[in-house]
Amino acid sequence: MNKRLILHLVGNVVRVCGALMALPLIVSLLLRSGDALALLVSMLIALAVGTALSLVQPRRDTLRAREGFAIVAFSWIVVSFLGGLPFYFSGYVPSLVDCFFETVSGFTTTGATILTDVEALPKGLLFWRSFTHWAGGMGVLVLSLALIPKMGARSIHLMRAESPGPSTDKLVPRVANNAKILYGIYVGLSVLMVLALLLCRMNLYDALVHMFGAAGTGGFGTYGDSIAHFNSAAVDIVIGVFMALFGVNFSLYYFLLHRNWKAALGNSELRCYVGILLGVTGIVALNIMPLYNGSFFTALRYSFFQASSIMTTTGYATADFDLWPQLSRTLLVILMFIGASAGSTGGGIKVVRVQLLLKSMVRDIRRTVHPKSVNTVKLDGHTVDEGILSGVEGFFFAYMLILLLATVIVSLDGFSFETNFTAVVATLSNIGPGLGMVGPTGNFSAFSDLSKLVLSMCMLIGRLEIFPILMLFAPSAWKR
Amino acid sequence: MNKRLILHLVGNVVRVCGALMALPLIVSLLLRSGDALALLVSMLIALAVGTALSLVQPRRDTLRAREGFAIVAFSWIVVSFLGGLPFYFSGYVPSLVDCFFETVSGFTTTGATILTDVEALPKGLLFWRSFTHWAGGMGVLVLSLALIPKMGARSIHLMRAESPGPSTDKLVPRVANNAKILYGIYVGLSVLMVLALLLCRMNLYDALVHMFGAAGTGGFGTYGDSIAHFNSAAVDIVIGVFMALFGVNFSLYYFLLHRNWKAALGNSELRCYVGILLGVTGIVALNIMPLYNGSFFTALRYSFFQASSIMTTTGYATADFDLWPQLSRTLLVILMFIGASAGSTGGGIKVVRVQLLLKSMVRDIRRTVHPKSVNTVKLDGHTVDEGILSGVEGFFFAYMLILLLATVIVSLDGFSFETNFTAVVATLSNIGPGLGMVGPTGNFSAFSDLSKLVLSMCMLIGRLEIFPILMLFAPSAWKR
Repeated sequence: MNKRLILHLVGNVVRVCGALMALPLIVSLLLRSGDALALLVSMLIALAVGTALSLVQPRRDTLRAREGFAIVAFSWIVVSFLGGLPFYFSGYVPSLVDCFFETVSGFTTTGATILTDVEALPKGLLFWRSFTHWAGGMGVLVLSLALIPKMGARSIHLMRAESPGPSTDKLVPRVANNAKILYGIYVGLSVLMVLALLLCRMNLYDALVHMFGAAGTGGFGTYGDSIAHFNSAAVDIVIGVFMALFGVNFSLYYFLLHRNWKAALGNSELRCYVGILLGVTGIVALNIMPLYNGSFFTALRYSFFQASSIMTTTGYATADFDLWPQLSRTLLVILMFIGASAGSTGGGIKVVRVQLLLKSMVRDIRRTVHPKSVNTVKLDGHTVDEGILSGVEGFFFAYMLILLLATVIVSLDGFSFETNFTAVVATLSNIGPGLGMVGPTGNFSAFSDLSKLVLSMCMLIGRLEIFPILMLFAPSAWKR
Repeated sequence: MNKRLILHLVGNVVRVCGALMALPLIVSLLLRSGDALALLVSMLIALAVGTALSLVQPRRDTLRAREGFAIVAFSWIVVSFLGGLPFYFSGYVPSLVDCFFETVSGFTTTGATILTDVEALPKGLLFWRSFTHWAGGMGVLVLSLALIPKMGARSIHLMRAESPGPSTDKLVPRVANNAKILYGIYVGLSVLMVLALLLCRMNLYDALVHMFGAAGTGGFGTYGDSIAHFNSAAVDIVIGVFMALFGVNFSLYYFLLHRNWKAALGNSELRCYVGILLGVTGIVALNIMPLYNGSFFTALRYSFFQASSIMTTTGYATADFDLWPQLSRTLLVILMFIGASAGSTGGGIKVVRVQLLLKSMVRDIRRTVHPKSVNTVKLDGHTVDEGILSGVEGFFFAYMLILLLATVIVSLDGFSFETNFTAVVATLSNIGPGLGMVGPTGNFSAFSDLSKLVLSMCMLIGRLEIFPILMLFAPSAWKR
């Protein structure tokens, strides 16, 4: 492991994080929200730490897969710690563990909170809190679309390997150009969303903050009752639709821009994603109709928003779905597992992985019937490599294993099975709220520090697609 | 599909089932429990149906994998329906769905019950109910050790394929002989257990019934408070130890009888099984100590019994573990997933599968560190074939998929998430009790008929290792 190179590059990331704090600082000064000093001090610390680290000069330039993963993992951890300092210095979150949890939740675009009264925080801090979502979403795009495929690691080659149809290689020849195009789409969609929210008569501050949460599929807001605060069907529809758009593989937008309709709209992951989203929306709408005086359209408004919010792993709420009938609650938990599309800012297992797992299962059944037959798994007309299928199956087991082990540790706190299990699913899939105590009107504040750290680790593991974090615990990664 | 052959052979199995009903009939007549007529009528119906089916003469003798699976699946279903008739005719269980559920639960060695007051039933019926466990356990042995490997189906070659160390081929050259040896061991252990229970001053009837439940890893008893009724440390220890013994791969006993100590005691699945069992026993004992006046040994008595009962998927209880602290409850749920050893009468995912999944995950992590390295997975010193690893990973996904889908359907009844989720795990892994409403002092009676049928299907799917049942829904299995 090239440790000096890791320190050097983590330092660069930390410096960028420090620079990003200038934005909430400006907001704080403009709005005179009184949290400018906390932001300024944190910013200076981040810049100092970042500069100090980046002064470490690597002796060699070799960047192998393991160094790449270590840089990604450590960057996320260090940035989450330093990014949490404004909450600490301002005195609003007196526990460093809570500050770390809240900022990990921000950068990983999870949206799980330890705040019991979000409205008590000044606007500079809230802006920074939501902005971590937007920055994190950008980081996820660069990870899943540019950085990781370049490093040649098999199991997380989501774009290149697992969706054999539209591969990033075909987009444009060079990775750096890919990243630029994808950032362009990300920024473009973000601007459109802010404009749409302004048209709904939201003020600019709220529009920006809620765009950050939707674009990053994070879910932090500025009101205790989330999106329900606005009590506006227009806002619900705009945010609901934009969340769904941010859960789509971004390379499909590139195809759309180039009028390659077939590649974009014929994509099987997209069809599957839309199908699941609309299917669950419909069932939940019928299920919750009695709660809304039997009005199907009112029920549809709430069910679409919630299905979109959970499936894209955003976590915004327009209703307390924890009080919905058991069928709807369970379906939302299923959506938590599935998650959004690969190559989007969303988390979870990802639709394309679920597709491959299902196709692989159908093949196993076919093999049971015809033991000697040779079957291949196809997606978008291409045969999927067996190594990729095995990688996806391994990913699924690792996901479930971490889910069960983390649930055991969190159960030490003595809360209900439902609370513990969905708290872990909601963090591992980067959603935010779960059921029970961590439902949309609840929060994570009552957990012990140990549980908060375990759940923070779940957010990181889920966000970085499991293996880069697990790798850090492998002794062989650290051998010379 | 050779339908006539299937009907013919299912008929043979049904006739055996009818013949087996003679045993409870004798018990009923001896004890004058008043349920002889219900048993006699059911027996005659089973014999008649079985004879009628076996009169169907197959035109061809070809028995391929798919016919084999269909015979196994349909036999289990038909036998469960006919075996449930005594409950119906006696009037004690007025719903046919309930009768079916209870008997599926018996034959699949699950032990989940719809009875709200088991002690109200006459002794002939209770004997039959428990005897289905013992017969089912025998069926499982023949399935996992003799019939299925012969049919050449890859994914459920547990003994031959997944434990590369001691393979059934090496035991003795011929499958029929294997079955005889394994039945000998099964009967031998059963006799030993009855003798041990008699020494604990249990009466012969109770000793037989509880041996049936432990040997088949089923869990039906004759008392409302299960094994707690006897209130005897000796009984707890005897049943606890014998349950653990019945959860071991039976071929290891063959090695022991031939003094091949290394093959028996060096077996990695055995070591892993014992390690998990004792590890959970220890943690749970420490966790529940405060409930038993701080006495570690009392806590150990209850924790060992419960860990053994759940891990072997038996489901007997000496305490209401639903009232234990959340950590212990969650650990027991983890044991429900893992289950017993392959080649035993126990259910669940099986220890060897969990081992292979973990080893495969370690390899994935190693590959993340060294992308170009070639790694193989080894077990007991042998390299595990990639096809087997992929089969195990596919099995795991299918298990989780069925778990989540069944939980959605069961949630229609509106019970808690904990109840629904653990009810499905407890049936899919053939354990019996779960948590909440289906905890050790609860039962499954409150579920709707739809849920009861779904849970019955889960028991069958789990018992037959998933694919034989799923295969029945594949159109290609039924094509000419």
